[in-house]
Amino acid sequence: MDAKRDLVLERVVDVPPELIWKAWTDPKHLTPWFTPDPWKTVGCEIDLRPGGRFHTVMRSPEGQEFPSDGCYLEIVPNRRLIWTSALEPGYRPAKRTATPGHECEELLFTCVLTLEPQGKGTKYTATALHMTEADAAKHATMGFHEGWGKCLDQLVAYVKTL
Amino acid sequence: MDAKRDLVLERVVDVPPELIWKAWTDPKHLTPWFTPDPWKTVGCEIDLRPGGRFHTVMRSPEGQEFPSDGCYLEIVPNRRLIWTSALEPGYRPAKRTATPGHECEELLFTCVLTLEPQGKGTKYTATALHMTEADAAKHATMGFHEGWGKCLDQLVAYVKTL
Repeated sequence: MDAKRDLVLERVVDVPPELIWKAWTDPKHLTPWFTPDPWKTVGCEIDLRPGGRFHTVMRSPEGQEFPSDGCYLEIVPNRRLIWTSALEPGYRPAKRTATPGHECEELLFTCVLTLEPQGKGTKYTATALHMTEADAAKHATMGFHEGWGKCLDQLVAYVKTL
Repeated sequence: MDAKRDLVLERVVDVPPELIWKAWTDPKHLTPWFTPDPWKTVGCEIDLRPGGRFHTVMRSPEGQEFPSDGCYLEIVPNRRLIWTSALEPGYRPAKRTATPGHECEELLFTCVLTLEPQGKGTKYTATALHMTEADAAKHATMGFHEGWGKCLDQLVAYVKTL
């Protein structure tokens, strides 16, 4: 942890780790909540092993699609999931490419998700590790806390319907 | 594997995987062979776990020192070792920094080392995965095959003294 280069969303939610794990690791259960409304997640592929592919396609309200690829690093069922956009699947260093329609380069980060049982719920901690303080600041400005928080609300509401 | 973005050194050597593994994973046994003579490896720290630090310091014949940090990804004793310079230890995306005294940016790559027993020896395969064809070409021009080949000669000669 590095306070200046990390962004953290930490919250206790009233659903168990097993349901949150399912929502993060099965495309069928990820697409309903992964993108803050009115954005949609319209594609997802998950190869859940170290070095495996984590692929998503987000669609803007205007209909533009933003594919993205990450690489899984650590998988501890129901407890910890780590993936990064700094590597392609198979661990190859990822290119920093400009996203079509955006001027800026893609922001590289590593996501460390930890789930700790707490009563009948879960202490949910999502940490985004960045290269630099500037990247962390940019991610914060892009709405990290609001966006990831809203997604977590969506996740909790969704898994309660399962 | 991607023929255009990967560089591969593959050779059968007459020492067993266990000795090669020792030479790659213990600082005491890594420093004697890791840098092609007359360069020297003058520092090494190894935290042999996924996410752990692989730190080396190379010294040029003129005495200039070049520290570098990588992150271990997969560790299968005596068979497979994967680490990358695209992540810092702890999986944080690595900065591409200019090396002091060099004009160019540091080359990011992932190293996949596989050791397969072959008779009393080992089929040794070291693959460097790059972001782009340009990075692979640059690494080849920097002397990948000669350099890594010479280091392997040094490794084999060294472990025979153990």
